[in-house]
Amino acid sequence: MAESGIDYSSLFAKNLPAASGRWGGFPKYNFIGGHNNPDEIPVEGLIEASARVLRQDGQSLATYNLSSGPLGYNGLRDFLVEKLAHYRQIRANSDEILITSGSNHAIDLMNQVLLEPGDTVITELFTYQGAVNRLRKLQVNVVGVPLDEDGMRMDALAMTLGDLQKQGVRPKYIYTIPTIQNPTGSILPVERRHELLRLSAEYRVPICEDECYADLIWDADMPESIRSLDPSNHVLHIGSFSKNLSPALRLGYILAPWEVLSQMLACKNDGGTGALGQMVVADYFQNNYRAHLDQLCASLKHKLDTLVKALQTHFGDAVSYDVPPGGIFLWVKFPEHIDTKKVEAAALAEGVAFNPGSDWAADPDAARNYLRLCFALASDEIIEEGIAKLAQVFRQETGVPE
Amino acid sequence: MAESGIDYSSLFAKNLPAASGRWGGFPKYNFIGGHNNPDEIPVEGLIEASARVLRQDGQSLATYNLSSGPLGYNGLRDFLVEKLAHYRQIRANSDEILITSGSNHAIDLMNQVLLEPGDTVITELFTYQGAVNRLRKLQVNVVGVPLDEDGMRMDALAMTLGDLQKQGVRPKYIYTIPTIQNPTGSILPVERRHELLRLSAEYRVPICEDECYADLIWDADMPESIRSLDPSNHVLHIGSFSKNLSPALRLGYILAPWEVLSQMLACKNDGGTGALGQMVVADYFQNNYRAHLDQLCASLKHKLDTLVKALQTHFGDAVSYDVPPGGIFLWVKFPEHIDTKKVEAAALAEGVAFNPGSDWAADPDAARNYLRLCFALASDEIIEEGIAKLAQVFRQETGVPE
Repeated sequence: MAESGIDYSSLFAKNLPAASGRWGGFPKYNFIGGHNNPDEIPVEGLIEASARVLRQDGQSLATYNLSSGPLGYNGLRDFLVEKLAHYRQIRANSDEILITSGSNHAIDLMNQVLLEPGDTVITELFTYQGAVNRLRKLQVNVVGVPLDEDGMRMDALAMTLGDLQKQGVRPKYIYTIPTIQNPTGSILPVERRHELLRLSAEYRVPICEDECYADLIWDADMPESIRSLDPSNHVLHIGSFSKNLSPALRLGYILAPWEVLSQMLACKNDGGTGALGQMVVADYFQNNYRAHLDQLCASLKHKLDTLVKALQTHFGDAVSYDVPPGGIFLWVKFPEHIDTKKVEAAALAEGVAFNPGSDWAADPDAARNYLRLCFALASDEIIEEGIAKLAQVFRQETGVPE
Repeated sequence: MAESGIDYSSLFAKNLPAASGRWGGFPKYNFIGGHNNPDEIPVEGLIEASARVLRQDGQSLATYNLSSGPLGYNGLRDFLVEKLAHYRQIRANSDEILITSGSNHAIDLMNQVLLEPGDTVITELFTYQGAVNRLRKLQVNVVGVPLDEDGMRMDALAMTLGDLQKQGVRPKYIYTIPTIQNPTGSILPVERRHELLRLSAEYRVPICEDECYADLIWDADMPESIRSLDPSNHVLHIGSFSKNLSPALRLGYILAPWEVLSQMLACKNDGGTGALGQMVVADYFQNNYRAHLDQLCASLKHKLDTLVKALQTHFGDAVSYDVPPGGIFLWVKFPEHIDTKKVEAAALAEGVAFNPGSDWAADPDAARNYLRLCFALASDEIIEEGIAKLAQVFRQETGVPE
């Protein structure tokens, strides 16, 4: 009988990421991770939806992809066609939509189809960590375009595209989060959306429009999606059910020209995205979308107010931020000399988790004196306590706030 | 405004697989794809489970991975600990189990951790298409070991390992489906399981034990899993909920030493496997596992009987097969001169889909005169009609049956 163990370290592939540690639970003051508001999970609504949709389509769970084929559950794609038309002015057919296991999965498939090591992708200078980490892992050159309070600066984008063209570089795509930009929370005005499309056409570079947060706007008018303004095929439009309902469900989607979608499908070798979540979300949102979003947004706005008050109380003028018109995060600026990354461990030791700005940027150094605070998960009490603790830690580690 | 479209073909990565076609629905006589029996989806049981588990844990849908961490939902891993102990004699802790989006996802993560182009993996000569295709795509050398009616031949495995050692090659793992082998349906006797572990230790090559079909045995005694016989860390044990419940749910798992699991976790950048399926399956199986499996197995055995009768009627002695003691497929042998792949298109034109043997083998040529028929999805009537049609097509295309 076998007695000596296998030495797996001698079998591992080269260049693996560092092994994961054992999971120790969430920190008490959890301002990271993009979680949602537990009080707004519509438990009874989901129970009703489950019963209804299982009675209707449950038997099709016996087949891969239900009876809907590899693009995903018909009911969910039908809901998206209506939702995109009604709220985002997008005319699409359900066979232009691919359901994915979260929006990151859509990004992965898009990257698999478009990218090779050495390629270039343009992003906003401050941007979603998951997108930029994926690009770095693929050895892709990430070029960040500066933002202002209205999102990506089109003058800077034009300059970047021109410079790259002079170097003989055609970027593979322009990644933007135009509507509740992550992490800054801005909304790109419609004029800039038109200009972005013009530049996309001029330089023959597609736009990846990531609208994961677009459902979570409470006050401002929402400009039409870039995809809705596109008369041709310039836009790969990504969305998610993580932010408008539940991140644990792992459901996202991409709306793309068939030329791209058919290649993504060929790379999607997962046997389909999990069916039960698709079925239940389709049924629930077909009946409850607007009411759920209204209530969720009201709760998020309240939490943001709580967060802003806590920051005013405990940080005063030491930090600055634009209060976003929606979303689940606040992007906080510290004085230039502060590197928030250096405070991360000390804060975590006190149970406070935040995203250092340098993790949320195409150029880490440019975001060194920022941090991102997610506010959807924490209760009012936890927000108040957590920000008080965070101020203590920053004072101790950096002298700011004084 | 943008008018000219993007030429995506000029942006695609090199070496993409062929683009997918539009999905045209399932063929009428569908003997492929590993689907399950629609009549045995426990719709009312799943509705009850959904209500119970959502009332209990629904709020945790607001957080990535519920409150269970990246290994997967605690309730499902707890169920697996009990199931593996009771039915497979495996002692495991829940933190040795990683829930994946189907068992192929477990294979993908294992491959990501262990494999590089040019590596070697040993499989059974006739084996699961999904496993061998993944290996080929990774440019891994696949070495097939012949089977007999009792599964992988240990004399042949010993010879293969010895030969590879002489060439200086240490295979990365031995992939086996020991319990209802795919596609042959055999069960590896316990003596061979011990011998396999001995060879694994001697040559320091881990075993990947894929037990996706082990729950679907109706008559035979099931030998203990290889993992249960292993006193050390030789076995990476994979299972699935696709075959014992529903493939559309996309739920599988791997039980592995933490050294391997922690590396797989680091590569699993999907934000967790979809939570709702995990929750509902955990609750349903905690209360209904044995009763469901008994009923499902009875229905599958009945369908297999129908299939065998239809083959006898329409093919007579022109084909041969070992009637398997479980599972959802039958491996059918034709005379040596027949290449079933050449009949695939003609059969499909008549609405009959089967798996040509050459797609289901480490060495395609060795399985050229075989085909695989999945019998769980089709009704008795469809099985009878479909096999009659299949015989017509084979007669027309090959002269067999006469």
